[in-house]
Amino acid sequence: MIPRYSRPEMVAIWEPQARFRIWFEIEAHATDKLAELGVVPKEAAATIWAKARDAVFDVARIDEIERVTKHDVIAFLTHLAEIVGPEARFVHQGMTSSDVLDTTLAVQLARSADILIADVDALLAAIKRRAFEHKLTPTIGRSHGIHAEPVTFGLKLAQAYAEFDRCRARLVAAKAEIATCAISGAVGTFANIDPQVEEHVAAKMGLTVEPVSTQVIPRDRHAMFFATLGVVASCVERLATEIRHLQRTEVYEAEEYFSPGQKGSSAMPHKRNPVLTENLTGLARLVRGMVTPALENVALWHERDISHSSVERMIGPDATVTLDFALARLTGVVDKLLIYPQNMRKNLDRLGGLHNSQRVLLALTQAGASREESYSLVQRNAMRTWEHGEDFLTNLKADKDVTAKLSVAELEAMFDEGYHFKHVDTIFRRVFGEA
Amino acid sequence: MIPRYSRPEMVAIWEPQARFRIWFEIEAHATDKLAELGVVPKEAAATIWAKARDAVFDVARIDEIERVTKHDVIAFLTHLAEIVGPEARFVHQGMTSSDVLDTTLAVQLARSADILIADVDALLAAIKRRAFEHKLTPTIGRSHGIHAEPVTFGLKLAQAYAEFDRCRARLVAAKAEIATCAISGAVGTFANIDPQVEEHVAAKMGLTVEPVSTQVIPRDRHAMFFATLGVVASCVERLATEIRHLQRTEVYEAEEYFSPGQKGSSAMPHKRNPVLTENLTGLARLVRGMVTPALENVALWHERDISHSSVERMIGPDATVTLDFALARLTGVVDKLLIYPQNMRKNLDRLGGLHNSQRVLLALTQAGASREESYSLVQRNAMRTWEHGEDFLTNLKADKDVTAKLSVAELEAMFDEGYHFKHVDTIFRRVFGEA
Amino acid sequence: MIPRYSRPEMVAIWEPQARFRIWFEIEAHATDKLAELGVVPKEAAATIWAKARDAVFDVARIDEIERVTKHDVIAFLTHLAEIVGPEARFVHQGMTSSDVLDTTLAVQLARSADILIADVDALLAAIKRRAFEHKLTPTIGRSHGIHAEPVTFGLKLAQAYAEFDRCRARLVAAKAEIATCAISGAVGTFANIDPQVEEHVAAKMGLTVEPVSTQVIPRDRHAMFFATLGVVASCVERLATEIRHLQRTEVYEAEEYFSPGQKGSSAMPHKRNPVLTENLTGLARLVRGMVTPALENVALWHERDISHSSVERMIGPDATVTLDFALARLTGVVDKLLIYPQNMRKNLDRLGGLHNSQRVLLALTQAGASREESYSLVQRNAMRTWEHGEDFLTNLKADKDVTAKLSVAELEAMFDEGYHFKHVDTIFRRVFGEA
Amino acid sequence: MIPRYSRPEMVAIWEPQARFRIWFEIEAHATDKLAELGVVPKEAAATIWAKARDAVFDVARIDEIERVTKHDVIAFLTHLAEIVGPEARFVHQGMTSSDVLDTTLAVQLARSADILIADVDALLAAIKRRAFEHKLTPTIGRSHGIHAEPVTFGLKLAQAYAEFDRCRARLVAAKAEIATCAISGAVGTFANIDPQVEEHVAAKMGLTVEPVSTQVIPRDRHAMFFATLGVVASCVERLATEIRHLQRTEVYEAEEYFSPGQKGSSAMPHKRNPVLTENLTGLARLVRGMVTPALENVALWHERDISHSSVERMIGPDATVTLDFALARLTGVVDKLLIYPQNMRKNLDRLGGLHNSQRVLLALTQAGASREESYSLVQRNAMRTWEHGEDFLTNLKADKDVTAKLSVAELEAMFDEGYHFKHVDTIFRRVFGEA
Repeated sequence: MIPRYSRPEMVAIWEPQARFRIWFEIEAHATDKLAELGVVPKEAAATIWAKARDAVFDVARIDEIERVTKHDVIAFLTHLAEIVGPEARFVHQGMTSSDVLDTTLAVQLARSADILIADVDALLAAIKRRAFEHKLTPTIGRSHGIHAEPVTFGLKLAQAYAEFDRCRARLVAAKAEIATCAISGAVGTFANIDPQVEEHVAAKMGLTVEPVSTQVIPRDRHAMFFATLGVVASCVERLATEIRHLQRTEVYEAEEYFSPGQKGSSAMPHKRNPVLTENLTGLARLVRGMVTPALENVALWHERDISHSSVERMIGPDATVTLDFALARLTGVVDKLLIYPQNMRKNLDRLGGLHNSQRVLLALTQAGASREESYSLVQRNAMRTWEHGEDFLTNLKADKDVTAKLSVAELEAMFDEGYHFKHVDTIFRRVFGEA
Repeated sequence: MIPRYSRPEMVAIWEPQARFRIWFEIEAHATDKLAELGVVPKEAAATIWAKARDAVFDVARIDEIERVTKHDVIAFLTHLAEIVGPEARFVHQGMTSSDVLDTTLAVQLARSADILIADVDALLAAIKRRAFEHKLTPTIGRSHGIHAEPVTFGLKLAQAYAEFDRCRARLVAAKAEIATCAISGAVGTFANIDPQVEEHVAAKMGLTVEPVSTQVIPRDRHAMFFATLGVVASCVERLATEIRHLQRTEVYEAEEYFSPGQKGSSAMPHKRNPVLTENLTGLARLVRGMVTPALENVALWHERDISHSSVERMIGPDATVTLDFALARLTGVVDKLLIYPQNMRKNLDRLGGLHNSQRVLLALTQAGASREESYSLVQRNAMRTWEHGEDFLTNLKADKDVTAKLSVAELEAMFDEGYHFKHVDTIFRRVFGEA
Repeated sequence: MIPRYSRPEMVAIWEPQARFRIWFEIEAHATDKLAELGVVPKEAAATIWAKARDAVFDVARIDEIERVTKHDVIAFLTHLAEIVGPEARFVHQGMTSSDVLDTTLAVQLARSADILIADVDALLAAIKRRAFEHKLTPTIGRSHGIHAEPVTFGLKLAQAYAEFDRCRARLVAAKAEIATCAISGAVGTFANIDPQVEEHVAAKMGLTVEPVSTQVIPRDRHAMFFATLGVVASCVERLATEIRHLQRTEVYEAEEYFSPGQKGSSAMPHKRNPVLTENLTGLARLVRGMVTPALENVALWHERDISHSSVERMIGPDATVTLDFALARLTGVVDKLLIYPQNMRKNLDRLGGLHNSQRVLLALTQAGASREESYSLVQRNAMRTWEHGEDFLTNLKADKDVTAKLSVAELEAMFDEGYHFKHVDTIFRRVFGEA
Repeated sequence: MIPRYSRPEMVAIWEPQARFRIWFEIEAHATDKLAELGVVPKEAAATIWAKARDAVFDVARIDEIERVTKHDVIAFLTHLAEIVGPEARFVHQGMTSSDVLDTTLAVQLARSADILIADVDALLAAIKRRAFEHKLTPTIGRSHGIHAEPVTFGLKLAQAYAEFDRCRARLVAAKAEIATCAISGAVGTFANIDPQVEEHVAAKMGLTVEPVSTQVIPRDRHAMFFATLGVVASCVERLATEIRHLQRTEVYEAEEYFSPGQKGSSAMPHKRNPVLTENLTGLARLVRGMVTPALENVALWHERDISHSSVERMIGPDATVTLDFALARLTGVVDKLLIYPQNMRKNLDRLGGLHNSQRVLLALTQAGASREESYSLVQRNAMRTWEHGEDFLTNLKADKDVTAKLSVAELEAMFDEGYHFKHVDTIFRRVFGEA
C-alpha cells in the first residue's frame, strides 16, 4: 500500500483509529449481552458506551502501552480503562484476543468489499454509458491480433460490462465468505463465554455467526476472498490491455484522456502514452501475487498458529487498497476515453473489404457453385485485393465468373455492415437488460 | 495428470472419445435447431442423429486426418461425414470452431465439477460419521503447537466438515461460472447463425447461454473456476496437515490406516508413515500452482488470442483429475483413520492439568481475591507443576492460600472436563444441523 | 506433459526405462566401491555389471512386482535379481531408497539442463544469424506502444540474444545447483555406508557430492532449478510477445513462417495468425506456474517428509519437457521468421518524420534559440504534421522562423537515420563480441 | 513494507532522500564524462559537485514541483537547479529519465543485496556457533514425522548452514544480475549520448555496463533477483518450521528464547509460543508471493512499457525489507535458541531403543541367519517393545534365539550411539571446512 496507488476511503479502513473503533464496538456490544445474561452489571455496560461511544482513541498512547505489555489487545483495553474508568474491568470477560482481532478483520474486509462493490458499480455505469454511445460504431474484430470480421465498439464494451457484472456478483459472494463473527474463546469451545454473546455481536456488527471456530476464523474464507480479488484484478488487466492495444500508434482507435494542459512530450504530439492502463496492468500483477500467500494461509496447525497474521497485515490493506485504486482508475479511463470512430473506420477498410470474404463464399455456394469453385473464385479476388491493396468489392464486380453467379446488386448488398450488426440489440438486451 | 494420481471417471471426461462425443452432440443439436429455422433440411438433422447417435468415433482416424488438415474440428467433421454420409454437409453451418471447442470445455468442466461435488459429499459423509463417533472424545486443543485447553476430536472434525461444506457451495458456484454455451460465430456477432441455435444447444447440453462472447467464452469464468479448485485444495492440505501432526511419534493420537499385510518397515513397527496425507500436501501445492496461469489467461488480446489454449490443455485435466484424486484419497484416510483416544487422554494429562489454570484464576477472582493475588497463587502452583511434572490439582489442594479461597470440592469441580464441552451440542447443531 | 507440447529426447529422460537405467548405474557403481572397501565380494560387483550392463529392464514386470511389494525400489531390485542372479543380494548394501531416488532425480534434471542449454544455444544461433542479417534494417522503436525513435531490427534481436545468453548462464548455474549425489542412508549419517561410496558414485555419474543430506537432497536446490526455468520461460514469452505485436494487421512488420501448403484461412489471405507465439505465451504461463510449488517444497519437516514427491513427479517432466518444446518452437519461429523491411519503413514514415523532433529541438537550442522558443517552433510544426498527416521536414523548411536558425541543409542532415545507428556496432560488439 | 517487519538500514535505501542522492550521483558523474568529451564545460561539472555534493535534498519541495510538472525526474532537476544555479542546465544532457531511474533501481537493489548478504553472514555465524556447540548432542532423526535413526543436533544445524551458504552464493549471483548501468537514451541507441558516459557512470556507481538496453534495463534481470529472494525466503521457512516442530509441547526439544520479563501466559507457564518462527513462516509466504509478479514483468511490449513500474515500487522495498527483517529475526532466534538436550534424550529413548532394529537385523544376517529368520527375530522383539513400551535391548538379550546368534556383548555394542555419529566429523568438514 503506497500513497501513489491509494484512495483515502479504503485506506481509512485500515488505519489504527478505525481498527480501535471496531475493537471498541465489539467489546461494548459483547458487554451488553454479558450484562443481559447477568455476567456483568448492566450499569457497567451502559457506562462503557456512554464514556467511549464518541471517544477518539489515542493511538500513540496505545502504542506506548503496547511497548510495555507486548500485547496489542491488552494495550487497547488498558487505554480504554483510562477513558471509561473502573467499569472497564467488565469488558472482555471470557473473551480471547483473537475473538476481537478476527472479528475486526472480518468487519474491515466486509467494509472493503462494500467499497469494491461500489467501485465496480461506478465502473459498470461508465462502461454502460460508453457502450450505448458507441452501440453501433463499427470497428474491426480481431482474433490473434489479425483482422477478422466487424463488430461494434459498443459490443467490445458490452463484453467488458458482462465481465465486471460477474465480478460484482463474485465480490458479493466474497464478502459473505469473510463477514463472520467469532467470539468463542481460546480454542473455540465457548468454555468461558456464552454463544449468545457471539450471536449478539454478529447481529450488531452486520456479520453472520461463524459456525465453528478454533480461536480463529478458518482461513479458507480469507483465501476465497483474496482469490476473488485476484480474478477481479485480472479483469481489470483485460480491459486495460484492450485500451493499450487501441492506443498503439498504428491502431490509434482510442486514447486515454489528456487534459489540455497535460503533455506527453511537447515536441512529439503523438507521444501520448497509455500510462494509466499500463499502470493498471502492473497493479493487476500485484493483486494476483497476493492470492497464493492467502491460499498458503489456509493450512494452519491444529487449532491455530499465527503464521497467517503477517501475511494478512500486508495483503489485507495492500490487496484491497490496490484493487480499489485500480477500479477507480479504470473507471476514470473509461469515462473519459477518447474514442476515434474515424480511425476505426479507416482500420476497418484497410483490407479493402476482405472481412466480407466468408460471406461472399457462402453466397456463391448458395448460388449453386461447388464448394471448391466458390473457394477458388473468392480466393483469387481476395489475393489480388490483399497483395495489391485493392478493393475487394471492385475486384469481385469485375470478375465475370463471379458476376455469372451473383449480380452486382447482390454483391453490393453483401458489403452492407448491417449484416454483422443485426443481433447487437439481442446482445445488448442480454447484457444490459435493454437495447 | 499421471496415472498414479488419477481416477478413471474423471480421466474419462478428458479422453478423446468423450470430447468427440460432446462435439457431436453440440453439432447435432445445433443442426436440429437450424432445421427448425429452415436453414438446413429437417431430414438431414434426423439422419445425423440416426447414423451417429451411438457411433464410436475412430480417434486414430481423426488424428490421421488432422495431420493433413492441421485443424482438429475439420478433422472431426470429415470423420463424421464418413459415418453420416452426405447429410454431414449440413452440420456446422454458420458455426466457428471455437463455438464447438469452448462449449465442449464448458461441458467437460461442468461434468468435472459434478464429480468434485460428489467427491466432497463423500468426504463430508465420512467426516460426519467420524465426528459423531468422537463427538465427546477429549483431546487437547493446541494453539501455536502448544497445549491450550481441551476440545473434542469431534469438534476438530466438525471444523473440517464446515470447511468442506463451504467448499461444496464454492464448487457449485464454480460450476455455474463455467457452464455456459457460446455459438456466436467468428467474433461473437451471430452474423452467420441465429442466436436461437445457441439457446437450443445450451438447453440441451445443460448449460446457460453466454450473454456475450467474442468467438470465445471469456476466461474470467475459467479463472474463477480454477481459483476455486485452489481453495478446495488448500482445505485438503489443512486436514492432511492435521493428520500428519497427529501421527507424529510424540503425539500419536491418530494414524492412517495400515492394512494387516501392509508394512511400514518390518523391523520398525512404529515406522508407519503418514504418506497419504504427505502426498495430499504435495497434491495441494500442484493444484494451487495452476491458479495463477488461469488468472493470467484472462487478459486475452482483443476478441481473442489462443494463448489460453495450451494452458487449459494441461490444467483442465491436471487440476480436476488431481483434485478428484486428492478428495477421494482424503475421504479414504478419514474413513479408516485409526483414532487413539487413550493417547489423546495421555497427552491431555501430560501437563498435570495445567490447561485448567485460567479457570482457577477466574474462580479465585470471583471468590474475592484481587487480580494480582489470584495470578500469584495460580502461577506458583502452575510453575511447580510444570517444572517438576507434578499434578496441578494436587498442588492447589495443598496450597493453604488457595484453599482459603476455594474449597477442595470447588477445586475438583473445576477440573471437570464437561465444563469445556458444554457447548459441543450447540456447535454440532450449527455445523451438522443435529447434535 | 502432453504429446502435443513434447519432444522425444526430453521425454526419454523421464521414461521408466531411462530411470531404471540410472538406478542400475547408481547401484552398480556403489557396489564397485563397496567391493573395493571389502564390504561385498569383488566378483559380485563384476557379475552385476556383466549381467546387467546392457539389460533392457522389463517395466511391466517391475510394475507387477511393485503392485505386491508397494515399493518401487524393492520391485526394481527384485527384477534386477532376476537378471543378475544371486549376486544381486550384494547390491544396495547399507543404502536407502532415497539414495537411489534422489540421486536419480539429480541425474535426470542435470540431463534435462543439458538439453535446455543446447536448446538455448540453438536459439542463440538463430537469433544471431537474423540479427546480423537485419543489423541495419531500420524500424521504429516503440515505448508504451507509441512510436519513439528509430532502432534497427538487428538491435531488437541483439536484445533478445543478450537475454537468452543470460538464460544460458542461469541454466548452467541451475544445473550445478541440482547435480549432486547423496548416498548417506536413512537420516544422512552414513551409519551403514561409507561416505567414499557417495564420492565414487558422484564422480561416475557426473555429479558433485552433497555435503550434508538428511535421507534426501535438500529441496532449496530444486527450488532454484525450477525458479530458473520460470525466468527462462518468461524470456520466451517476451520474444513471443514481440513477434505477436509485429504480426498484427496494422503493424505487419514480421510474420511467423507459413509453408506454401499451409492456410490460415483460404478465403482470407491476410488471416495468418501468430499461433506459435501465442502458444509460447501460454506455455510460459505453465512453466511459471510450477515455480511456486517448487518453492513450497523447500520446507520439508525434520529430516524429510515426502510431500515434495508428488510435486516433482509432475513438474519434473512437465517443466523441462514444456520448456524444451517452447525453446525449440521459438528457435523455429525465429529461424524462419518472415521479416518485412518495407513495412517497417512504411511504419517508420507514418508520422512524417516526427521521430526526429527532439533532435531538431536540440539543434535549435544549440543554434542560439531559447529553450522556450525552440519548443514553440518545433511544436507548431510537429502539431501541423501530426494533425494533417503532413511531412515534418517539409514543414520545417517552410517555416521562416526555423530556417532563420537552421539552414535547409542542416535540417535535412538532421533527418539522416544514420544518426540513430552510429552505435549499432558498439552494441553488437558488446552483445556478440563482433559487429 | 510495514514498520513492524522493517529494519532501518534497509528501509533507508528506499527512502526519497537516498533515491535523490543516487540520482544526483548518476547525473554528476555523467556530467563529468560529458565535460571530458567536450559536450559541456568542465567548470559546470565541477560546480555541480561543489554545490550539491553534500546537499540534503528538499523532498517536500521536489514533491511540490512534481505536482505541477507531473514528472519526477524533471522535478528533481528543477530542484537541483535551485541548489546548483545556472550550471545545472548542463546536467542530464542527452539522457532520458529511464537512464536515471533504472540505474538508480540497480544501485538500490545492489545495496539491498549487500545487506541481505551481510544478513546471511550473520545467520551463518550464529548457526555455526550453535552447530559446533551441539555437534554431538544426540537427537532422534525423523522422517515423515516418525522416529527413524539418531542424528545430532549439530547435524541438523549443519544442514541449515549448508543451505544458507548456498543462499549466500545465490544472493551474490542475484546482485550481479541486477547491478548494471544503462545510459543509452530514448530507445537505447545512444543517439544523443556517447556510450562512454554509460561506462564512466557504471564504474563510478559500482555497476557493470548493460550490453544492450531499450530505454530500460531488461526485466529478466529483476525477475531472477526476486526469484532468488523467494528461494532464500523458502529456506528461512524451512528452519523456522523445524524450530516450530521442536517447540511443540509433545516434542519440546528447543524453544525460542524468552526474556525473564516476557510472559507467554502468566498462568500457563508452558504456554510459550513459537511466535517468531510462525511469523517467519508468514513472511516467507509474502516474499514468495512477489516472485510471480516479477516474472510477469519480463515480457514488456516492444522497447518498453511501464507496467513493471508499479510492481517494482511495491516489491522492490517490500521483498528486500521483509527478507532482511526475516533473516535478522531468524539469526536472533538461532542465536538465543533454548536447546534442551535432556528432552532430546528422552524422546530418543521413547521407543526403547527400536531405532537400532535395522542394525540388529543386519548383524543377524551377517551372523549367518537367513534374511527371513533375521526379520522374524527382530520383528517379534520389536513388536513387544513397541506394544508394551518395553526396552528393545532387554528383550533381545532375553530372546534365546537371538542370543544363539549374537552374544550379549555384541548386542550391547549395537546400541552404542557412536555408531551413528562416526561420520559427523566428515560432514562437518564438508560443510564448515573444519570439524
